[in-house]
Amino acid sequence: MSENIAVLGLGLMGTALAETLLAAGHRVTVWNRSAAKADALAAKGAARAATAAEAVAAAPLAIVCVLDYEAARAVLDGAALAGRTVLNLTNGRPAEARETGAWVTGRGGDYLDGGIMAVPQMIGQPGALILYSGSRAAFDRHEATLKLLAEPRHLGEDPGLAPLYDLAMLTGMYGQIAGFLEAAALVASEGRPVREFTETLLVPWMHAMAALKPRWAEEIEQGDYATEVSNLEVNRVGMANLVTAFEEQGVKPDLLLPMKEILERRVARGHGAEGLSGLIEELR
Amino acid sequence: MSENIAVLGLGLMGTALAETLLAAGHRVTVWNRSAAKADALAAKGAARAATAAEAVAAAPLAIVCVLDYEAARAVLDGAALAGRTVLNLTNGRPAEARETGAWVTGRGGDYLDGGIMAVPQMIGQPGALILYSGSRAAFDRHEATLKLLAEPRHLGEDPGLAPLYDLAMLTGMYGQIAGFLEAAALVASEGRPVREFTETLLVPWMHAMAALKPRWAEEIEQGDYATEVSNLEVNRVGMANLVTAFEEQGVKPDLLLPMKEILERRVARGHGAEGLSGLIEELR
Ligand SMILES: NC(=O)c1ccc[n+]([C@@H]2O[C@H](COP(=O)([O-])OP(=O)(O)OC[C@H]3O[C@@H](n4cnc5c(N)ncnc54)[C@H](OP(=O)(O)O)[C@@H]3O)[C@@H](O)[C@H]2O)c1
Ligand SMILES: NC(=O)c1ccc[n+]([C@@H]2O[C@H](COP(=O)([O-])OP(=O)(O)OC[C@H]3O[C@@H](n4cnc5c(N)ncnc54)[C@H](OP(=O)(O)O)[C@@H]3O)[C@@H](O)[C@H]2O)c1
Repeated sequence: MSENIAVLGLGLMGTALAETLLAAGHRVTVWNRSAAKADALAAKGAARAATAAEAVAAAPLAIVCVLDYEAARAVLDGAALAGRTVLNLTNGRPAEARETGAWVTGRGGDYLDGGIMAVPQMIGQPGALILYSGSRAAFDRHEATLKLLAEPRHLGEDPGLAPLYDLAMLTGMYGQIAGFLEAAALVASEGRPVREFTETLLVPWMHAMAALKPRWAEEIEQGDYATEVSNLEVNRVGMANLVTAFEEQGVKPDLLLPMKEILERRVARGHGAEGLSGLIEELR
Repeated sequence: MSENIAVLGLGLMGTALAETLLAAGHRVTVWNRSAAKADALAAKGAARAATAAEAVAAAPLAIVCVLDYEAARAVLDGAALAGRTVLNLTNGRPAEARETGAWVTGRGGDYLDGGIMAVPQMIGQPGALILYSGSRAAFDRHEATLKLLAEPRHLGEDPGLAPLYDLAMLTGMYGQIAGFLEAAALVASEGRPVREFTETLLVPWMHAMAALKPRWAEEIEQGDYATEVSNLEVNRVGMANLVTAFEEQGVKPDLLLPMKEILERRVARGHGAEGLSGLIEELR
């Protein structure tokens, strides 16, 4: 069944969303602050709205995907939201999502927040994931549509949850990137082939190490950091050795230094016999 | 064919190595500074040597696995190394391995260095990996034996390579751990289930992100950091948002802060349109 959907914000991501919905046969009404970005979509059959309010009025579901929450609020400000569902796929923080959710709900709309775990090229492709939170009823009503964009995962009624999990996943990604960059710099310092190292050694190792994390997560949930494998004192010594090696190789260990510091701090506080999962206590 | 192998150093790791070789039917001669640690192995059929020198004299291959390179040199100091192969599975740095390799070779021995990418419980099990460097002839001669311990990978004649790659893999691991801990702390800050998040969202995401790294490694080898996906300016803004979210959630973003700093530095230097792989330039 063809639905009518409004897409507000036609940057790289909004354009990919609108194109995917159009390609699936939906009627799509588009709007962008700089009108020229709607041209290509209009040529593919999208309806153009002259204003954001007109776009919202044209469809029961309005997808907003702009730079930030301030822009999202600016876009929605003049629109009549009563009886409409607003799906905000703009990136932001839990606090912002809660505020915007309350604002939309206060004007009689249904609010869904979303965190897109994909680049525009991946929208509509296998492997793309979008996290949702907020109105479960709205999610259920539009689930078939949402499935066209990416695998949808509803996390709960609290609109802050999608940004929370989105940011947590980005956090995990940045840590992995930091480790990769430092590792690559170490290998490159000897003129060794970084690609071969990465492909044949580092990536399989990262997969194996990632697979241990649910176990650590359980230790964190239980607050029980006992270990028989590799305690903090052993890791403190290993990290000191690692940092010395970076110096000997002429590579800056900057991205690793806070890990060295919290290892030292945690051991100094008497937790040297515990496992690495216990380091989370130093982050609270 | 049963070989005669000496194992010097019977801590957790040395004991696991000796047990695995014994279980495979080899004659194993063991020695440890504190003699009592040889008792259990002797009961399983190992021969005990009274001194390190006696252990080295008993077998063509002597595996050393002690606390650090200083201890390894102390252990080997009185032994006759001519015509022997020394396999040093002690953890250390490239510079130390080269020095020890030259020292052994200078005394007429063959030197192999090794980096064990496994915990003692994994020795002899599928998934365990040991990196080797140094004498290729010695590696080839003993390959069948080495395969009993773990998947063996010879990296080159330079003895420093096994420690180099070992440390680089540990570096990648610490980055991943840092990202995991910060992500878990963010999710826990809202009282959400860390294990479920880790298992269903974070780990699959880490696998997907790890799979992108060979491509980045290629960019690093070519010094070409152009991107169409996610440039440094976008990441700089995203990271600032992330750190604000950590503050709002009452979680310390300490492990991420140097990543924030080098993103800012790299963009300030005019590389905002490049991709994340280009950050490696800030580590040299
Ligand atoms: N690209 C990705 O890989 C990716 C991945 C996940 C999530 N996201 C998120 O998706 C959202 C959009 O990203 P994008 O890649 O599409 O960005 P983009 O290509 O830079 O587009 C930004 C969009 O925001 C609009 N905008 C900015 N300020 C505005 C304002 N004050 N009022 C109205 N519209 C305004 C722009 O309109 P004009 O054309 O008029 O400037 C444009 O449509 C962001 O929140 C981003 O974090 C992106
Ligand atoms: N355990 C792991 O998960 C793991 C993983 C990869 C690599 N490794 C590496 O394997 C090596 C051994 O680790 P491990 O876990 O077996 O450590 P461990 O259980 O603490 O044992 C340390 C060993 O070193 C000996 N030793 C220390 N100082 C010595 C000295 N000056 N002279 C002679 N012997 C000395 C100890 O002898 P005493 O019994 O007399 O004290 C003991 O046999 C280390 O380099 C470690 O980094 C370990």
